[in-house]
Amino acid sequence: MIYFDNAATTRPEEAVLARAQRYLGEQFYNPSALYAEGYALHRELEAARRELVSFIADEDEYCAVVSSCGTEADNHAVFCGGRRGNVVTTMGEHAAVYEAVQEAARRGVEVRFAPLDGGGAVNVEELLKLVDDKTSLVSVIHVNNETGAINDINAVAAKVKAKNPRALFHSDGVQAYGKLPFRLSGNVDMYSASAHKIGGLKGTGMLVKRKKLVLQPFIRGGGQEGGLRSGTENVFGIAAFALAARMRYSDGAAEKNYAAVRRVQQKLWGLLDKELFVRISPENGSPYILTVAAKGVRGETILHMCDDRGLIVGTGSACSSNAAKKHSRVMQACGVGPELLDGVLRMSFNIHNTEDEAERAAAILNDVVRTDRELTD
Amino acid sequence: MIYFDNAATTRPEEAVLARAQRYLGEQFYNPSALYAEGYALHRELEAARRELVSFIADEDEYCAVVSSCGTEADNHAVFCGGRRGNVVTTMGEHAAVYEAVQEAARRGVEVRFAPLDGGGAVNVEELLKLVDDKTSLVSVIHVNNETGAINDINAVAAKVKAKNPRALFHSDGVQAYGKLPFRLSGNVDMYSASAHKIGGLKGTGMLVKRKKLVLQPFIRGGGQEGGLRSGTENVFGIAAFALAARMRYSDGAAEKNYAAVRRVQQKLWGLLDKELFVRISPENGSPYILTVAAKGVRGETILHMCDDRGLIVGTGSACSSNAAKKHSRVMQACGVGPELLDGVLRMSFNIHNTEDEAERAAAILNDVVRTDRELTD
Repeated sequence: MIYFDNAATTRPEEAVLARAQRYLGEQFYNPSALYAEGYALHRELEAARRELVSFIADEDEYCAVVSSCGTEADNHAVFCGGRRGNVVTTMGEHAAVYEAVQEAARRGVEVRFAPLDGGGAVNVEELLKLVDDKTSLVSVIHVNNETGAINDINAVAAKVKAKNPRALFHSDGVQAYGKLPFRLSGNVDMYSASAHKIGGLKGTGMLVKRKKLVLQPFIRGGGQEGGLRSGTENVFGIAAFALAARMRYSDGAAEKNYAAVRRVQQKLWGLLDKELFVRISPENGSPYILTVAAKGVRGETILHMCDDRGLIVGTGSACSSNAAKKHSRVMQACGVGPELLDGVLRMSFNIHNTEDEAERAAAILNDVVRTDRELTD
Repeated sequence: MIYFDNAATTRPEEAVLARAQRYLGEQFYNPSALYAEGYALHRELEAARRELVSFIADEDEYCAVVSSCGTEADNHAVFCGGRRGNVVTTMGEHAAVYEAVQEAARRGVEVRFAPLDGGGAVNVEELLKLVDDKTSLVSVIHVNNETGAINDINAVAAKVKAKNPRALFHSDGVQAYGKLPFRLSGNVDMYSASAHKIGGLKGTGMLVKRKKLVLQPFIRGGGQEGGLRSGTENVFGIAAFALAARMRYSDGAAEKNYAAVRRVQQKLWGLLDKELFVRISPENGSPYILTVAAKGVRGETILHMCDDRGLIVGTGSACSSNAAKKHSRVMQACGVGPELLDGVLRMSFNIHNTEDEAERAAAILNDVVRTDRELTD
């Protein structure tokens, strides 16, 4: 089985599972408890949070608020960062930001959406026009989850701050953290990430924030995570996340993986029949995602036919089956025409995918689309 | 090591860990994905949610919205159930409800607190006086996490509904679910529970709700959990939770465990020196919790001395070290005098604790308090 839906979720790394075991069994204690066993875990978690930050930012300037997922982290940033005036975001956001700002709008905040280019990156000039002195929050996705388009968030954040230094800048980094080599400049105030997209476990995410930023909690209660996220800490999930990130970042791993995954992506695209497939992902996007549209066929049909032949791919945003039932808002914002909207397929890679898998996948995809066309002709 | 802090967190059951493995490895897929492997998980999750409900309510009348923890479920109920008029709750709530209603108050909702009796149960008569036709939500904890006092939530809910049929009734059942044999009457609209308190894993909880109740989502995004809780489903955590609950409830397990744990609680209390300890937990409370106050000594000191001798106990609410640093609001609401507030200890049990452990624990506790007193005399 070839698994090319890694932007939806990845198989946890064996080493990560082994590390989680320790906190699922022997060290199951409550890290907020006062006895020695609890306090020892408290210190391990402190180290894990710092490590999670260290790969993308200065740990003295930024801290991690661990959450249950990227969606919660995005909701935290939007609902607690964007309470006044207007919120500026893009048409390319994941539903975790998009649906949150829609709710913010119902609560009386004005929400402004910047348009995308054909590959899914935000039009920065248009975005900046939307920022004014009433803007409380700007949220720009780092890597678009449907196309892989990369937004240069440090550059965008700098321009936003130049226009309104009081506007907070947030970025949804769920498809970037652990995959792209990058560092947050001090202009990015908040940054969301998720563990299960990079070989960690479902149920763990984080909101990285500037330490100096005063933020209200989103989930309230016992005061865990420095008062910013209550609920008993998910110790095994946090420890697993830190190891998964270390495996993706230490010793130049991010750069090496980036190049290796780019070869997989290029091999796959190179072998797809250009009579059958149109590329939607931009050339300069993340190598971890290759989105194409098959002309005149339904993506869902192709997905099932591929599945029968041992290839798992996604359609558009695979986060929710409900969302997948209608045409993708992001694809439409990219200008994908109505004749292609039904045929969108997203292939997304893990560091373990190989060029050989890409070759076999291309053969299956070409054959499946040809077969489907012949059947419907 | 004797572990008597099970109200804070429990060691996951071996069988539960074994079940989680399947979804951490082989079956790691996204259950919202369209391919067969994802859809198979989707169906397993549907079954797990129904099973989680089945132990405490009619699955045709109630459904489970899986969350990341009991705290999130409580926040969901308060923030989405109590948006208008006034919210009536008790002085005995866990911080997950208490801090949420404090925030609701800052947002303009009037919050009214009903007093407790000496054991920590709510004074129902006083509570009912606070309910009027402007009440949007009543939230009453099922088992008080600091004393074990049981509130008869079905009876309270019926009286609330008699006074205002439009008021929603929520109960925080984190210390009850999997421990008490009970069934929700149709008067309880929402009920929170947590997996890691009953041998499941940290990072999973649920809000059980009446299917007919229209509730806004608290975390928004891809539309998982029937649109009520977005974020990739934590498959292994949910499957683990369902098995943990089954182990606590099937074949009359809850009744058997209840009786067995009562013997542990009674043995411990019976052997504690009444010259040294005052009982705070009511006689008719949950057997899973025994809270006492050691006269004239500091609970935290006792906790550390016990830890050194192989006994882990809690102090008051062990959810957060921050909260534990000041005197417990709940203990004060129970009328515990200032001379005892520093000496509160909570012993909380799992189904695996034995009467032999209770005997050894009593000996350690008696000895430790005597020693501490001699040292400070």
